[in-house]
Amino acid sequence: MSYREVTPEILQELREIVGPENVIAGDAEKMEPYSHDEVAEKEYAAMPEAVVKPAAAEEVSRIVKLANREGIPVTPRGAGSGLSGGAVPAMGGILLSVERMNRILEIDRENLVAVLEPGVITNEFNSRVEKEGLFFAGYPMSLEMCYIGGNVAENAGGGRAIKYGVTGRYVLGLEMVLPTGEIVAFGGKRVKDVTGYNMTQLMVGSEGTLGIFTKIILKLLPLPKAKIDMMVLFEDVQAAIDVVPQIMTAMRLTPTGIEFMDRLSLETCCEYIGQDKAKYKNAGAFLIIELDGNDADTVRNECLDIGDLCLENGALDAFVAEGPSDQEKIWSVRKHAAEAFKAISPQQSLEDIVVPVSSIPRLMPVLEELSQKYNVLIPCYGHAGDGNLHATVIKRPEDTEERWKETLPRVLEELYVSVKELSGTISGEHGIGHKRKKYLPLVLSEAEMEAMKSIKRALDPNNILNPGKMFDL
Amino acid sequence: MSYREVTPEILQELREIVGPENVIAGDAEKMEPYSHDEVAEKEYAAMPEAVVKPAAAEEVSRIVKLANREGIPVTPRGAGSGLSGGAVPAMGGILLSVERMNRILEIDRENLVAVLEPGVITNEFNSRVEKEGLFFAGYPMSLEMCYIGGNVAENAGGGRAIKYGVTGRYVLGLEMVLPTGEIVAFGGKRVKDVTGYNMTQLMVGSEGTLGIFTKIILKLLPLPKAKIDMMVLFEDVQAAIDVVPQIMTAMRLTPTGIEFMDRLSLETCCEYIGQDKAKYKNAGAFLIIELDGNDADTVRNECLDIGDLCLENGALDAFVAEGPSDQEKIWSVRKHAAEAFKAISPQQSLEDIVVPVSSIPRLMPVLEELSQKYNVLIPCYGHAGDGNLHATVIKRPEDTEERWKETLPRVLEELYVSVKELSGTISGEHGIGHKRKKYLPLVLSEAEMEAMKSIKRALDPNNILNPGKMFDL
Repeated sequence: MSYREVTPEILQELREIVGPENVIAGDAEKMEPYSHDEVAEKEYAAMPEAVVKPAAAEEVSRIVKLANREGIPVTPRGAGSGLSGGAVPAMGGILLSVERMNRILEIDRENLVAVLEPGVITNEFNSRVEKEGLFFAGYPMSLEMCYIGGNVAENAGGGRAIKYGVTGRYVLGLEMVLPTGEIVAFGGKRVKDVTGYNMTQLMVGSEGTLGIFTKIILKLLPLPKAKIDMMVLFEDVQAAIDVVPQIMTAMRLTPTGIEFMDRLSLETCCEYIGQDKAKYKNAGAFLIIELDGNDADTVRNECLDIGDLCLENGALDAFVAEGPSDQEKIWSVRKHAAEAFKAISPQQSLEDIVVPVSSIPRLMPVLEELSQKYNVLIPCYGHAGDGNLHATVIKRPEDTEERWKETLPRVLEELYVSVKELSGTISGEHGIGHKRKKYLPLVLSEAEMEAMKSIKRALDPNNILNPGKMFDL
Repeated sequence: MSYREVTPEILQELREIVGPENVIAGDAEKMEPYSHDEVAEKEYAAMPEAVVKPAAAEEVSRIVKLANREGIPVTPRGAGSGLSGGAVPAMGGILLSVERMNRILEIDRENLVAVLEPGVITNEFNSRVEKEGLFFAGYPMSLEMCYIGGNVAENAGGGRAIKYGVTGRYVLGLEMVLPTGEIVAFGGKRVKDVTGYNMTQLMVGSEGTLGIFTKIILKLLPLPKAKIDMMVLFEDVQAAIDVVPQIMTAMRLTPTGIEFMDRLSLETCCEYIGQDKAKYKNAGAFLIIELDGNDADTVRNECLDIGDLCLENGALDAFVAEGPSDQEKIWSVRKHAAEAFKAISPQQSLEDIVVPVSSIPRLMPVLEELSQKYNVLIPCYGHAGDGNLHATVIKRPEDTEERWKETLPRVLEELYVSVKELSGTISGEHGIGHKRKKYLPLVLSEAEMEAMKSIKRALDPNNILNPGKMFDL
């Protein structure tokens, strides 16, 4: 498929739609920040021909109609904090940034619902609703910078999915511009809605390939009154993972989150932030278990019960943190993981595999085997309660550039095949985007891929919306 | 679109696929039960040309391939407990009953997941998992008879959506036969999965028009240890509904369910089951509030706090029920609602409207006005916490048949227009199906309808799967 260029005439039309100050073209320095997201690999960066910043649905509609008429790619973009190249203009064309559509339009306390534009920063939204005793439970780890629109487009996860699910659970309705430029709205301020197909949930996680959100209706929850974190050290991964289902079945408790780090991650992070690993009793793995609820005593008792369960099942030690400073200590190692790994080598691939929780221990030897076979580092940490692990394939500093380029795709392919064998898949929350596109056929059959492609073709007949992502048509 | 008939040759092929004992044809008496669901109106009934009962995905695939090749409609059917004509063979052809695919294939305690065939009775599944200290939270009111496959196809709701959401939240994966006969699987034993479009959630609630489920992967939750029901009486609807958001915002509590009945429903039901209405202090409305949790004392205290809040806000009285016999008393009136209304007249339309919770009081005068204007009865009860109300338009016994036939569509149209004005929609949990098809354009724009239709066309190019439902192509 060949696309048309953004000509001076088209630039002029775009300027008329959004105002000349909201179009960037011909200025490489100003456009560069829009050419990549947080993916480490440079090969997934691509420069747009024009950056356009609409302020309203009507403007988005006009831009998309123009692009659809002329056959020009349009890539919608939030904060650019993504980890799969989803917001990168892979085929050039127009980069449509929602940064000016950043209003919280309504916080409806009576219906526990909020209406937002896509460019609202997730964290700012959370602070705002927390003041009202409410919270938005579907948020990712990058919440300091990410936009709510990107969260919805990627169906962002985070560490609380066991109890609270992922972003999609909280999306009650969407106003959006379809690839043909029509403005439509699905769902609404309703916790139940079966009027026709569930277009809202089809759009959640569609990575900007089926529509551009202009208004998002989110469900809010009452903010729990009590919250406790606990760190539990284990000799090895198997021991750590074995207790996870027991918490939920034998104890009938659903923690907010269960985070996990393996030995290599722990060592790397301790070194990076200058902590003594002995503090962690030379643990081979640890869990951070978060609990929340409305009654502080109940939550504390649940926490102590879980601690006892862990110790009965071979845990080396357990620390409970109730205050913010204790919590910070517990989280410091885990929160520095991505950074610590980048310090080893910027040449790496942050993975996002997901397997059934009980299969995590069987995944660990696979990582070990791959790291030896291909002479790479593969530390692993992530959301154990969700089976979602950010194994990170890292180039050894002493390795050559050339060998790394050959090695990485082979490591990933073998990893993904193993993950599929364990009933898992290649992305739990980061998305397919540009980065994982070539691997999608490893986990989907031809008929499954074709079903998805047929939906893309039906809604975007000229393939102008975020082309080059997820799959080629 | 014209379809081909089920000829003797095709019947022969069907018999070869599923065995002759699993095909019914030419026997009106045996086919009659498959010609309708629980919709009261006879006009939505339709006889199949053949009833076919496959036992495996492979058989379903062969039946659908045959139908797709020959241009014969296939209507998938669960227990037939639906309320929108979804499982009725509107265009004749093959009625595909999943009644033989009724195995619970796996209860995976470690991953809190179950794998089922679509013909499992929801209630039997629930009893089974409860024995293991687990529960399936997405279930409808008809759980004694409905099948899990139908629940998923309709995205069934029920009374617990405020806390637990609807069926879709618990569907982690689906194996299904597409309209072309291909067997595909989306999702899996994973609480996070963003590999491609969210086909799983698109299929949930697609009313058997996009695929026939052959395997369903459901998420289970730990069974809460404590549960309390409370009945609160109010002078009128406004007072009752006003407290609903306060429970969730001021008290930061999320009840399991908040059921509601208006004065007319209460009177009708009391009369039907021979209870003295004075017992209810001549209340104009009542709420049944359900709470659950893991700590009995906490749940009881929450319940008492809610009771106090209600009494401070003008409630006439509040009764707490902790034991099963108390609970039965509280529920007796509510549970007999549908039955009591049928005793007035079998000519009625059980509606399923949904509005934002805070708009319920504004809906009540609309019902009152319509009932006077058209001389019909419209008692209203339902899931107040979800804004989902089963207003039931009932023919007055003294009214003529002819007038009723003219009146009903006008009442419904006016009701739906008002519901849309209140940011609501025409179905919260029963579906569009055959019954509400003609009203769908009242709540969806042409572009919104077209987006849905384009998906149907893309996946079912010959329009053979459950044609005549939701919309005409």
